[in-house]
Amino acid sequence: MMKFKKILVANRGEIALRIMRTVREMNIATVAVYSKVDRGSPHVSFADEAVCIGDAVASDSYLNIDKVIQVCKDLHVDAVHPGYGFLSENPLFARALSDHGIVLIGPSAKSMELMGDKLTSKNLMAEHQVPMVPGVNKAVRDVEEAKRIASEVSYPVMIKASAGGGGKGMRIIENEAELESMMARAVSEAASAFGNDAVFIEKYVTNPRHIEIQVLADQHGHTVHLFERECSVQRRHQKVIEEAPSSVLTEAKRQEMGAAAVRAAEACDYVGAGTVEFMVDGDLNFFFLEMNTRLQVEHCVTEEITGLDLVKEQIKIAQGESLSFGQDDLHINGHALEIRVYAEDPTNGFLPSTGTLSLYQRPQGVGVRVDDGFEQGMKIDTHYDPMIGKLICKGKDRAEAIERMSRAIDEFRIGGVETTLQFCKFAINHEAFKSGNFDTGFVSKYFDPALLNPIDENTQEVAAIMAVHVLDQAKSTQLPINQKSSAWQSRRS
Amino acid sequence: MMKFKKILVANRGEIALRIMRTVREMNIATVAVYSKVDRGSPHVSFADEAVCIGDAVASDSYLNIDKVIQVCKDLHVDAVHPGYGFLSENPLFARALSDHGIVLIGPSAKSMELMGDKLTSKNLMAEHQVPMVPGVNKAVRDVEEAKRIASEVSYPVMIKASAGGGGKGMRIIENEAELESMMARAVSEAASAFGNDAVFIEKYVTNPRHIEIQVLADQHGHTVHLFERECSVQRRHQKVIEEAPSSVLTEAKRQEMGAAAVRAAEACDYVGAGTVEFMVDGDLNFFFLEMNTRLQVEHCVTEEITGLDLVKEQIKIAQGESLSFGQDDLHINGHALEIRVYAEDPTNGFLPSTGTLSLYQRPQGVGVRVDDGFEQGMKIDTHYDPMIGKLICKGKDRAEAIERMSRAIDEFRIGGVETTLQFCKFAINHEAFKSGNFDTGFVSKYFDPALLNPIDENTQEVAAIMAVHVLDQAKSTQLPINQKSSAWQSRRS
Repeated sequence: MMKFKKILVANRGEIALRIMRTVREMNIATVAVYSKVDRGSPHVSFADEAVCIGDAVASDSYLNIDKVIQVCKDLHVDAVHPGYGFLSENPLFARALSDHGIVLIGPSAKSMELMGDKLTSKNLMAEHQVPMVPGVNKAVRDVEEAKRIASEVSYPVMIKASAGGGGKGMRIIENEAELESMMARAVSEAASAFGNDAVFIEKYVTNPRHIEIQVLADQHGHTVHLFERECSVQRRHQKVIEEAPSSVLTEAKRQEMGAAAVRAAEACDYVGAGTVEFMVDGDLNFFFLEMNTRLQVEHCVTEEITGLDLVKEQIKIAQGESLSFGQDDLHINGHALEIRVYAEDPTNGFLPSTGTLSLYQRPQGVGVRVDDGFEQGMKIDTHYDPMIGKLICKGKDRAEAIERMSRAIDEFRIGGVETTLQFCKFAINHEAFKSGNFDTGFVSKYFDPALLNPIDENTQEVAAIMAVHVLDQAKSTQLPINQKSSAWQSRRS
Repeated sequence: MMKFKKILVANRGEIALRIMRTVREMNIATVAVYSKVDRGSPHVSFADEAVCIGDAVASDSYLNIDKVIQVCKDLHVDAVHPGYGFLSENPLFARALSDHGIVLIGPSAKSMELMGDKLTSKNLMAEHQVPMVPGVNKAVRDVEEAKRIASEVSYPVMIKASAGGGGKGMRIIENEAELESMMARAVSEAASAFGNDAVFIEKYVTNPRHIEIQVLADQHGHTVHLFERECSVQRRHQKVIEEAPSSVLTEAKRQEMGAAAVRAAEACDYVGAGTVEFMVDGDLNFFFLEMNTRLQVEHCVTEEITGLDLVKEQIKIAQGESLSFGQDDLHINGHALEIRVYAEDPTNGFLPSTGTLSLYQRPQGVGVRVDDGFEQGMKIDTHYDPMIGKLICKGKDRAEAIERMSRAIDEFRIGGVETTLQFCKFAINHEAFKSGNFDTGFVSKYFDPALLNPIDENTQEVAAIMAVHVLDQAKSTQLPINQKSSAWQSRRS
């Protein structure tokens, strides 16, 4: 069994910082890489060593395999944690690390490849009795064949690009006339967007919920699931609010889905932390969507209800340790919610909102956790994903988690950019969300920007705090700078 | 059953803020009271309404019953949460509130009185089979009688002032000669210090551990315990580090102590959250110390391992609700540590360290909670207790909690005053603490200020961050104030 001495985190922002906190708790040295615009980021100052690897454009820095590997070699790095996004599901990166004798904290390149292609993965899952949406798991290019399949599974159906993902390359077809007119376009779009013209056709599940299962697998053949997360509140197929456990699953269904997810992981010889995503219909039938072969943004809610540190488990697995628990040792305690706090303007089509964080005060208190990668005074620009951070609240039950989240949202003071905080507060307090009677159409069904008053109470309080803050800054620079310096001198002497 | 509409928090600092967070989550309005020097405190700005009630000296403000009651009447307050310290265990306050039809979120005046006097409470406890330290539970003033008792329970013995507490009015006596010379002085000191010359004599337990049981009792006769907290790391009888569960209790002993604590609460018709404190010897024999009839500083570790919000439970009980769980529903999940972060200089006899918090950055991440009452830029002076806040870390087990606490201490950046952070880091990483083989003599036995390097790595990093921070402030006031204001204007328009 290995013991890592130094881990490089090939990522930025909140997830880089979150990973490094655990690495430090394990008494392992941390290495950050960063692009030129991220020089002042907390993940850089937190790390024991940090190397600037290129320009803001990710292909020159966070996506540049050669540069990351070079830093690993220069600094004698034992292992790399890729976080999510960027290189985290790139089998070329996994292979390159392996070629240089560096451990990837994640699954094998082969597992990534098996799960990275929609058709391959669906065939594999079907072989292992993981429930699939009715359809035909093979590439279709011909309209007549598409019509035959569609009438078999019954309309509405969905055309999906085999190489797509996250909602890209998907098209809902209501009837045969629509299929005839759209099929050729779908094939050519798949070719141009993903470099692969394979599409497949399956039953379109109406009003589905998105429920996913977290799995953990060690190198010694032990695989467990860590229950579900529900991520049905989405905007344009991007998750906005996540929770664990789901408000609709029965204990029997939870076990059934968990067992299916474990089979999915075992089918691709999975090692590490992964997530098997399912679509769930109104009768709690569930259908395999895809497997994400990495840590997910929303992993925190699972940590809150299981008491486990998923990054620590990932690292221990990568070191060759066996899981220290079995399925029967795992229990759900309480209920956790996560909202993604974006620098976006929900009253203006969720356009990215750039600027300087002139005020940034995090909420605190029992059951409140903020995972972020910003400090007051930092700039939010358009180089990367506009997520400021994640606000995670845990309660003894779902109602308490919602009340706590509402309080924490009000306590989160962000000035200088627009954010999705009030949008999230609207969502979690909506009757449909509170009752649990919602699906992935929640946002388009219920959200109207007019429901958010742009100059609400919170905004006014932020204004007041900002005013005081600016005054304080003026005072402190004009008067006591020398006092501070001399006080500091006297403390050192 | 009542539903409170407005709660006044008769306290300040971290505990006032902590209470108000929960009150807000329950959708109840909050009222703060504050002294003139606390005008800029977070507990004041957090509250829906805040009233300045007097000067810094507590007798004019936080201890002034008439003024607090007047605010309650003026603002139509339904209930008062007293926090800890100040008026929290004052039966006169409890009676005064009751006389004005205002609910105290706490036990009855009678329960406070019964438990507030050492001799009365000890007699009551003995009647209810709560284990007591061998001794005689009656006032002693005469030397000959004292000698008779001491030889019965065997030396060393302890002389305790009946009205004392928190280590005050206690004296260890090793032999009869010492008793003869000290008895008269102990009696006269008790008279002058506490206005009550009653002392009692009991066996002195060597190398004891301090382990206490949290209890909750509703108004309908249901009393449960929420397991133990161990607070053996003390400095001059003041708790410094607390944890739950204890590292030494067996499950059988836990149940035995829990049952004794429930009997203690029932014996004084207790209602609300309270703590029964025990001394535990090397063979896990436990002896009643006292009952604290209020929320305790260290309640957070119990919240972390039970998933309950103790303040919420207190408020629900005060509203007349029944406990929503029984003893069998309660389970320990994980392990939690709390350190008290004081503005004191551990390298200089723990003298209070005053100044302005020129840098104040809290640690974050999974399992980390900070309960505090300060923000960067605030002054720490000598008017009140020098506790800046509490750092609470939870892990899946004790080892993880210790690792997480070490990381969080390193991440806590406080500039401008000296703190006990590094002292606490020393303590939790000491072999005696890690192994669980320690008692209330831990600090005096193992701590030497020379072990803390005053200019350590952390201090140097704080210096670097402070330098950047001061530069940033200078820049921001000279240049972009107008930009900020205009950006703000445009957002409002």
